[in-house]
Amino acid sequence: MKAAVMGYGTIGSGVVEVLETNKDVIAERAGEPIEVKYVLDIRDFKGDPIEKRIVHDYKIIENDPEVTIVVETMGGVEPAYTFVKAMLLAGKHVTTSNKALVADKGAELIAIAREKNVNFLFEASVGGGIPIIRPINSCLTADVVEEITGIVNGTTNYMLTKMAEEGMEFDDVLKDAQAKGYAEKDPAADIEGHDACRKIAILTSLVKGQQVDFGDIHTEGITKISAVDIKYAKAMGRAIKLLASSKKTGNTYLAMVAPYLISKEHPLYMVNGVFNGIFVHGNMLGPSMFYGSGAGKLPTASAVVADMVDIAKHADKNIPLKWNPEKLVLADYRQCENAFFVRTKDSKEKAADVFGKIETVEAPGVTGETGFITSSMKEGDFEEKAKNLDVLSVIRMGK
Amino acid sequence: MKAAVMGYGTIGSGVVEVLETNKDVIAERAGEPIEVKYVLDIRDFKGDPIEKRIVHDYKIIENDPEVTIVVETMGGVEPAYTFVKAMLLAGKHVTTSNKALVADKGAELIAIAREKNVNFLFEASVGGGIPIIRPINSCLTADVVEEITGIVNGTTNYMLTKMAEEGMEFDDVLKDAQAKGYAEKDPAADIEGHDACRKIAILTSLVKGQQVDFGDIHTEGITKISAVDIKYAKAMGRAIKLLASSKKTGNTYLAMVAPYLISKEHPLYMVNGVFNGIFVHGNMLGPSMFYGSGAGKLPTASAVVADMVDIAKHADKNIPLKWNPEKLVLADYRQCENAFFVRTKDSKEKAADVFGKIETVEAPGVTGETGFITSSMKEGDFEEKAKNLDVLSVIRMGK
Repeated sequence: MKAAVMGYGTIGSGVVEVLETNKDVIAERAGEPIEVKYVLDIRDFKGDPIEKRIVHDYKIIENDPEVTIVVETMGGVEPAYTFVKAMLLAGKHVTTSNKALVADKGAELIAIAREKNVNFLFEASVGGGIPIIRPINSCLTADVVEEITGIVNGTTNYMLTKMAEEGMEFDDVLKDAQAKGYAEKDPAADIEGHDACRKIAILTSLVKGQQVDFGDIHTEGITKISAVDIKYAKAMGRAIKLLASSKKTGNTYLAMVAPYLISKEHPLYMVNGVFNGIFVHGNMLGPSMFYGSGAGKLPTASAVVADMVDIAKHADKNIPLKWNPEKLVLADYRQCENAFFVRTKDSKEKAADVFGKIETVEAPGVTGETGFITSSMKEGDFEEKAKNLDVLSVIRMGK
Repeated sequence: MKAAVMGYGTIGSGVVEVLETNKDVIAERAGEPIEVKYVLDIRDFKGDPIEKRIVHDYKIIENDPEVTIVVETMGGVEPAYTFVKAMLLAGKHVTTSNKALVADKGAELIAIAREKNVNFLFEASVGGGIPIIRPINSCLTADVVEEITGIVNGTTNYMLTKMAEEGMEFDDVLKDAQAKGYAEKDPAADIEGHDACRKIAILTSLVKGQQVDFGDIHTEGITKISAVDIKYAKAMGRAIKLLASSKKTGNTYLAMVAPYLISKEHPLYMVNGVFNGIFVHGNMLGPSMFYGSGAGKLPTASAVVADMVDIAKHADKNIPLKWNPEKLVLADYRQCENAFFVRTKDSKEKAADVFGKIETVEAPGVTGETGFITSSMKEGDFEEKAKNLDVLSVIRMGK
């Protein structure tokens, strides 16, 4: 079975490495050896063992009938979309690690794959190496998923963990993450929550079987989290985590990305550093959690190659995937009920005047402000009430 | 699609309940409705809604060509084995939650299913509702699994958690677990580690693709764990967990069931109460963990029904499962290297004489004995050396 890899960056070169390292077991599981015939990249990679397989024109792959599996690891919507669509229309199977592509064009590409009797798989697009797409599609099939909540961005989780462990300020930990290669030069996609937003859009689309537009999801990043917030979190015995969550409400879902204060009892509490964890609550299964490396060269490539093996096993058959293009109208997040941890310059009395019953929180060494937890209330109501206080920061209380 | 359920106990009635509660989504995912035509049980269940579907003779199911899926939730090797084998030979698909049957007869039943072009699935036999069998077979296909270590017995995990949280003694917590229905009247299968042993035998067989006899696995239960051990564990910032583990060594695996002292950093540390967690380390994926309800009516039934959906989607096709009947010779556990936590009546000096470099541990309120950690050494060497001390208890140090 001949394959082509489009994009020889971190993940693409990882795919070549995984196929090489575990060649024998992969051939056994796939039923035949998988060989990379082409690597598409704008660069030449002189001296690299794959040098002779480098091509610069995707049409060479598109027009080669020998190639049955195409791996897309370029990232971004274009030109990945044009290339992937061409490959599917040419009757080739595609697997991708590209969450931007899947969140934006998933429904359409799945439909094309179905029509051409090939597969469009994307296990690596959420949670890196963690099996989550396939478990949702083929393991949790007896359940109605009532909640899916994930720590799905390793960069921000590394930063929040570092802040919690070392008491560092946001700006310093961002510089550290950039120096270590965990955060990009332009870190907005991670720290503003956009990456996590695309991932929860993909998961919600799969759980509901219907298109969820990531632009509809209320998204807050971690840029406002400070060392003082972390002190309060510790005083409460909690951890601040950027959660991408989706909860069933009536016949739709309420999706949101925001930092939460979660307790030691929550399975996601122990998900630290660059690791990811995805919590799933099924109406029969109850709570479950999938944990592992949410990013990184080999873990992500491992998920891509697992898709290739699945494709090899279903070379003549489309594996049914429900993701209808009809757009799902998400529930209004302002109707969502949460308790909120608030820091304010105002007094405890003023806070109680505004919010009614509150629970104050003290953090060691923090003075000149009031920290308190509200009772559970609608997001919309909270926003209105909070206007009456001089608010320093707000973090939602998780479970 | 017509199904039959053999055994209307906790899990069997759960299967009927899951099929009823989530009827619509299950029909959609399976491609057609799944209807329970028969329930095999020795009892009559007068007045139960399934009363009219009760049969007492498995041959009625075997001989009914309308029945394509048979669920086995009776437990134990016989008569489950006879019944299941007959169903497979009659060309019916089977799914089971029965770890005793799978550990003992898995290889044979898989071979029969392959020959008859049907499926023999057993997701619920390990980890209850947690997807683990299917992830191993269809998600971790790009990896060589180097380690699989699970908390796979909810009863003992409940007991150890309770001991840790409340400082109770083993006998008291066992009575409590029995009163709550978490432990059976005869608790040996759980507390002696036999249940966990069968589960790690199944997982190792799947990971290696070869028969692992559970009788070959060195198995220690939790009966020797005392409240004093728990005090030491706390002093070390660790938790005592009954781990069923299998580690790749050369071309085979070293499998063992025993209590371990694991650190806060280990993903299994947070697996408390009746929950299960299964840690898997792939050579490309790195560490991952699957967490959820390891037992219980609806979670376990959810896994059984997920198998039924998978069967419905592959009604005309055997899903390849590698589990050759050829027996795997496991590595000798005495060659395994571990550090050991030891409690002895003897002095620190005597302990150091015997074991060389040791690290002593103090626990609040514990006097008249010495607690210490050895350096890492082979199990066999440890056993020899330990004979020279008046040992009160031994627990292996985990990661």
